[in-house]
Amino acid sequence: MVVELISVGTEILMGNITNTNASYLAQKCADLGLECYYQVTVGDNARRLEQTVKTALKRSDIIIMTGGLGPTDDDLTKETVAKVLKKELILDEHSKDCIAQYFERIQRKDITSNNWKQAYIPEGAIVVDNHNGTAPGLIIQTEDEPKKHILLIPGPPNELYPMFENDMMPYLASLSDQILVSETVKIAGRGESWVATEISDLIDKQTNPTIAPYAKTGEVHLRVTASAENEDDAKKLLKPVVKELKKRFPKDIYTTDEHVNLEDHLVDLLKKYHLTITTAESCTGGLAAGRIVNVSGASEVFDQAVVTYANKAKMKLIGVSEKTLKKHGAVSKKTAKEMAKGAAKLAKADVAIAITGIAGPDGGTKEKPVGLVYIGCYVKGVVTVKECHFTGNREKVRDYAVVTSLDLARRCIVEKFGDSHK
Amino acid sequence: MVVELISVGTEILMGNITNTNASYLAQKCADLGLECYYQVTVGDNARRLEQTVKTALKRSDIIIMTGGLGPTDDDLTKETVAKVLKKELILDEHSKDCIAQYFERIQRKDITSNNWKQAYIPEGAIVVDNHNGTAPGLIIQTEDEPKKHILLIPGPPNELYPMFENDMMPYLASLSDQILVSETVKIAGRGESWVATEISDLIDKQTNPTIAPYAKTGEVHLRVTASAENEDDAKKLLKPVVKELKKRFPKDIYTTDEHVNLEDHLVDLLKKYHLTITTAESCTGGLAAGRIVNVSGASEVFDQAVVTYANKAKMKLIGVSEKTLKKHGAVSKKTAKEMAKGAAKLAKADVAIAITGIAGPDGGTKEKPVGLVYIGCYVKGVVTVKECHFTGNREKVRDYAVVTSLDLARRCIVEKFGDSHK
Repeated sequence: MVVELISVGTEILMGNITNTNASYLAQKCADLGLECYYQVTVGDNARRLEQTVKTALKRSDIIIMTGGLGPTDDDLTKETVAKVLKKELILDEHSKDCIAQYFERIQRKDITSNNWKQAYIPEGAIVVDNHNGTAPGLIIQTEDEPKKHILLIPGPPNELYPMFENDMMPYLASLSDQILVSETVKIAGRGESWVATEISDLIDKQTNPTIAPYAKTGEVHLRVTASAENEDDAKKLLKPVVKELKKRFPKDIYTTDEHVNLEDHLVDLLKKYHLTITTAESCTGGLAAGRIVNVSGASEVFDQAVVTYANKAKMKLIGVSEKTLKKHGAVSKKTAKEMAKGAAKLAKADVAIAITGIAGPDGGTKEKPVGLVYIGCYVKGVVTVKECHFTGNREKVRDYAVVTSLDLARRCIVEKFGDSHK
Repeated sequence: MVVELISVGTEILMGNITNTNASYLAQKCADLGLECYYQVTVGDNARRLEQTVKTALKRSDIIIMTGGLGPTDDDLTKETVAKVLKKELILDEHSKDCIAQYFERIQRKDITSNNWKQAYIPEGAIVVDNHNGTAPGLIIQTEDEPKKHILLIPGPPNELYPMFENDMMPYLASLSDQILVSETVKIAGRGESWVATEISDLIDKQTNPTIAPYAKTGEVHLRVTASAENEDDAKKLLKPVVKELKKRFPKDIYTTDEHVNLEDHLVDLLKKYHLTITTAESCTGGLAAGRIVNVSGASEVFDQAVVTYANKAKMKLIGVSEKTLKKHGAVSKKTAKEMAKGAAKLAKADVAIAITGIAGPDGGTKEKPVGLVYIGCYVKGVVTVKECHFTGNREKVRDYAVVTSLDLARRCIVEKFGDSHK
């Protein structure tokens, strides 16, 4: 079945916000095995909205519309769809109750008459409760044969995401007699083209399951998706492919759990082996520590960290020797090594990450160009240093350095203590 | 004139990437005073691409197409536009030379015959050189009266952005006898709805210049745009409005320079008064330091920082008293104050930011709920502490805390030493 995404909102047309809803929904639809040929953004304008819905009904089987479900007169999505399908808008008592309850929950008493507009639904529509806002989601089927399906979802991401995952996705899945099951194989520390080359034979001959590579900064995620009549059969199809991928990238894959990111995994690994971690950062200025602390429960493995940007801070706080700085420079293998050692000592930590490099745009030389970063990792007395050459602007170089440092810590721990995800 | 954006690329339809090109172009077009009614994304499919171009030609005056200009057979944008406009593709010797020079510059010798495909252009098209890739940009005018304009731009942002700003924007500006000039008034530390209320009278009666508010995390940017026959006249129109905004938000506006962000401004302010800065962070784990270090040249004002996540780190590294932690807790006004003082002392800095709070999702209590953050700022012996209640998930609370801390430092410095941007 073919799906079309229609985003409604002047703020997208004006460039005030980036349409992340569209990429989220597109990815979820791809996961469901739905083909998407068109994404359209249109403003809150009755005539253009009507034209857009009519065109979509001609060329697509499923239309997912986001935005334009608010309480004001500008919000026209529901009204326009009802008009195109020649359906009346009727008051839905259940939705009215939900709106009243929502206002009670957030302790607001200023319900305006506008808000009750959100309780009106096209007759025959399936109501999907909104637990994070006032506009209900709606599923409307046309009377054509075969039926077409229009899904209306509120635009705010904190309302859209849970509603789509909990209610809309199961509905869409039910339209097919096939079930799709995916697993995401996450690879860190390798480039996309290298990964693609290593599995080009698998991708070339793929039918079911399929393998789709997604490039992230410093990571490549391989989404493996199998289609079958039931979940067990789909999982059976997935298993050998995921096993083969693990065989090809034995040290590069850190998880196959969609909800686990690199810092989650690192914190899990540290917890498993009862290790603590600290960081000493120069060019990344605290971003690696920031990633670790973003894991809820990081306090079990993380007490403190330092940012040593100036040479004197490197000497004073974590004991990098003046001789090393003079002879090898702040951006050197030797300095990274001493930073990692010194940071571990200061924090009395088992593991320490050190990052020193030239993020640019200034400060590069012929011997030490912009993008050169040394990443040190101390694990229980042993220090490993990786020399990296990153490309891109200052922000990109720093992002790559952070991801690479978390990945290096992971690799060093696994090297010493064994793997956790197998 | 009405512009329509067409993004060509299966990777957008599949959700592999977010369409940031569209929001970038939409904002630039709004700056140019062009109205945008539709944004469409379509794949590399000849039939659907042709249909999309034909539809756009019917309803819009200017069509900006991005993507699908690569060297492979999948790339069909140029070919499809030529077909719709019934124009031949002819070899452009200048573009051929540029491609050869580009390969020489990046020291690659493997030019394939495919690459020469990129030197073919629809007859009569204006060629726009691509200094960052091989596909030239193209501007094609239709033979209708009034003329329609189709702009073809390569999809990679590092090729698209400079090409659009340097060549395509001047072309678009030349289509109008009016010139648009904008100024961005940046406000930190205030909510969008509060700002909107304060200037509702200005927005209600606006015609020329217009005021468009853009909400960022912890910031509101007001884009003031004037239209006139020449730059001087436009600037004359802008002046009183910007002045009025400065009068209404005397302490909240930190810059009117589009290219200066909050940390740039803070670093400038520190340089101006020959001050140095450090940070001591708990729940934000180094992100505030990371923002400061992201300013190229931050080394003049920033030597070091600490992340003190555990209580013992707060005591040991920056001398927060055990009594304070026991009596008031780690998330308290008193702790924030001692952290700021201690951080300044450790780094021998003139200014110190301290952040301690409950980012969630766990750790909240009735008295100290998730989102409660204390931000301390030390300036030459005086400490100011701000109690904040942020909403949103862990990441959002941390982002708000970081922006608010940079803004508090700015306000405290201005309070003590005077303002810099007036």
